[in-house]
Amino acid sequence: MTNFKNTLNTRTKPIPFLDLKLINQDYEKLINETLSRKVSSGWFILGEEVKTFENSFAEYCETKHCIGVANGLDALVLLLKASDFPKGSEVIVPSNTYIASILAISLAGLTPVLVEPDLNTYLLDPAKIEEKITPNTKAILVVHLYGKCCDMEPISRIAQKNNLKIFEDAAQSHGAEYQTKKAGNLSDGAGFSFYPTKNLGAMGDAGAITTNDDNLAGKIRALRNYGSGEKYIFEEQGINSRLDEMQAAILNVKLPNLDKENKIRQAIAKRYLTEIRNTSLVLPFAETVEEDAWHLFVVRTKDRSRFREYLMHNKIGSDIHYPVPPHKQAAYKELNNDSYPISEKIHQEILSLPLNTTLSEEEVSYIIEKINLYK
Amino acid sequence: MTNFKNTLNTRTKPIPFLDLKLINQDYEKLINETLSRKVSSGWFILGEEVKTFENSFAEYCETKHCIGVANGLDALVLLLKASDFPKGSEVIVPSNTYIASILAISLAGLTPVLVEPDLNTYLLDPAKIEEKITPNTKAILVVHLYGKCCDMEPISRIAQKNNLKIFEDAAQSHGAEYQTKKAGNLSDGAGFSFYPTKNLGAMGDAGAITTNDDNLAGKIRALRNYGSGEKYIFEEQGINSRLDEMQAAILNVKLPNLDKENKIRQAIAKRYLTEIRNTSLVLPFAETVEEDAWHLFVVRTKDRSRFREYLMHNKIGSDIHYPVPPHKQAAYKELNNDSYPISEKIHQEILSLPLNTTLSEEEVSYIIEKINLYK
Ligand SMILES: Cc1ncc(COP(=O)(O)O)c(/C=N/[C@H]2[C@@H](O)[C@@H](C)O[C@H](OP(=O)(O)OP(=O)(O)OC[C@H]3O[C@@H](n4cc(C)c(=O)[nH]c4=O)C[C@@H]3O)[C@@H]2O)c1O
Ligand SMILES: Cc1ncc(COP(=O)(O)O)c(/C=N/[C@H]2[C@@H](O)[C@@H](C)O[C@H](OP(=O)(O)OP(=O)(O)OC[C@H]3O[C@@H](n4cc(C)c(=O)[nH]c4=O)C[C@@H]3O)[C@@H]2O)c1O
Repeated sequence: MTNFKNTLNTRTKPIPFLDLKLINQDYEKLINETLSRKVSSGWFILGEEVKTFENSFAEYCETKHCIGVANGLDALVLLLKASDFPKGSEVIVPSNTYIASILAISLAGLTPVLVEPDLNTYLLDPAKIEEKITPNTKAILVVHLYGKCCDMEPISRIAQKNNLKIFEDAAQSHGAEYQTKKAGNLSDGAGFSFYPTKNLGAMGDAGAITTNDDNLAGKIRALRNYGSGEKYIFEEQGINSRLDEMQAAILNVKLPNLDKENKIRQAIAKRYLTEIRNTSLVLPFAETVEEDAWHLFVVRTKDRSRFREYLMHNKIGSDIHYPVPPHKQAAYKELNNDSYPISEKIHQEILSLPLNTTLSEEEVSYIIEKINLYK
Repeated sequence: MTNFKNTLNTRTKPIPFLDLKLINQDYEKLINETLSRKVSSGWFILGEEVKTFENSFAEYCETKHCIGVANGLDALVLLLKASDFPKGSEVIVPSNTYIASILAISLAGLTPVLVEPDLNTYLLDPAKIEEKITPNTKAILVVHLYGKCCDMEPISRIAQKNNLKIFEDAAQSHGAEYQTKKAGNLSDGAGFSFYPTKNLGAMGDAGAITTNDDNLAGKIRALRNYGSGEKYIFEEQGINSRLDEMQAAILNVKLPNLDKENKIRQAIAKRYLTEIRNTSLVLPFAETVEEDAWHLFVVRTKDRSRFREYLMHNKIGSDIHYPVPPHKQAAYKELNNDSYPISEKIHQEILSLPLNTTLSEEEVSYIIEKINLYK
């Protein structure tokens, strides 16, 4: 092992993991114009911008409905609440996910049942679902993590056989496809996040639900608005979770470019996949490169902290998604003693490389070159 | 009874109940500037604008802490969740309120216990609280409705005697005072809404919690952020309820004028109180005119629909806050058969007159003149 700290790095401009200032730069003028129109419009709650976005995003996902909500976590909570499962019902969810997928189940008064991922895809392993199904299981919440859709065919078969609903956590997979259908249109209903760092990112919190189920859609529309469908009439005990008009206006500016931006992500992912050659790294699953939305490019390596330091020394930013698995968090004390070895291995070894629409060819080449020199 | 429909109204410009386009007009330039700075800043979650607003609003309310959250309902839910009462504990709340006060209790997994208001103030009647206290009662959620603070002295005595916490729903009372202290600083913790129509209104959903309790504040800061105090460490099962940076930026522009705007509201309220002379109307409680924030000017009349029609005929807008009491809503089936006659009477008879910072002297005079002619 060479000590990379003794080598001199002469690059002057560091490559940050993600710089939203840069990413939004091309949109600034249009966004300022649309926000200033919104400011002077005098209408700020569930107005035209939200309606327009709901229609456009439903069209984009090819679903019947899209309901704008305040954020991605709320989207999942509302999907589950609107499903009216008996209190304490079990919902299958991957053990390798951002904790919000699991929180949504708990916040809806249901019980999360964790299932290990496939080490090749990092996604819910269909082969491990059935052993976790009990008479109380009501649904499977799949998570299209890192921008890649889960293997829905076997999962749908299991759901059908066991009379379970399927929901998608599509927070990281705007525009990802599975057998020509888009994420958000692969189940009974999907929750999206438009957190600023997402493939389709707002400039604050924002989220949406897509579904083809009229009943579910109607119920969620009321539930996001204190439980009220009609002014001052409250059919249900709802929450306040409305997509912000300003954020919707920003999303309306950005949505038309989502496919183009995902293509840029794919092109970078393809270069990483073909040009990175380093036996100390495990690269992500490559077979579906054209279908994935490449929210994150996640590699695995035994000595992650050393690799990360090496990148840092070479002025390359990176991030960990995520360092501590949900079942090891204090928020889930009841799961702390359970063992999910694949998920634990993933959390220990993964590192996300820079992958976003502002990376230049030169930067990508530099990153590849440096990674290939890592020993 | 004369038939006012046969009289000719010659006023050309109607007076709307509320026109936010007009209300925000003076702020537009500053708000556009601050939003455009935000857009190019690249930082959109819990950044400088939220921090600045939290500090300014805590200072305004003279509380130790202010925590920005997504909306007023969430503010109340978070206050109650952070208090860690045993599941199913009872919380006293007025029967005459916007339903969100009651929803907050249910959403936090607690049981709302409704107490009738005083017909003079429309606020929680201290004399009726003790008969509703049981061994399961843990807190009183007072609501400073319509901009007027509840009578906190007797309520605090009751709370102390029975070892109960007190929380304030201050959604309608930004800047209102009780014995020289501000709403938000009269209890263990308060929830504010900055819904666009409020005295301090954002341009979308927004809310905050004020408290002097360090523990509660710390807990709420984590709970609003998925339960995470430190990045990727989750101590609790939290929610996603962050005050938006853009909305905080807007509130930072508007807060410095809140007192001035409340004074304008008070001046209009004073004119209504002294100049409206019509025996078919009951005017609001006048003794605390200087301390109240006059979010709404609520009159009572037996034949409300006729009075409302008369106003409409004279091109004067009005609104009802609120037409159906919470215990009669389908969302609270378990309360539908309970009887709260004072609350029901209020809901049947009240009407809110225009009261906002854009009303001209002439418009106020016209409204008074027309109301005095109503028979
Ligand atoms: C599968 C799944 N399900 C449900 C959810 C829940 O959805 P939400 O309720 O909408 O969050 C998530 C969310 N997932 C997100 C969020 O919950 C978030 C808080 O943390 C992670 O995202 P990420 O790592 O991209 O966020 P971060 O704030 O650490 O920012 C990453 C970088 O981006 C830069 N940055 C960040 C911000 C906010 C900025 O303004 N400017 C800027 O330059 C600085 C950082 O280095 C999660 O993946 C999810 O992944
Ligand atoms: C005691 C108490 N506790 C908790 C809460 C819960 O707080 P939040 O969760 O923040 O809503 C409330 C909220 N209370 C609010 C809200 O929950 C709201 C939905 O309904 C009522 O407020 P209000 O009657 O002012 O609202 P509205 O939407 O009917 O608007 C009134 C007029 O204003 C005009 N308008 C309105 C909007 C939104 C606009 O963009 N432009 C415009 O010109 C048109 C309408 O004629 C409640 O008092 C409360 O009163």
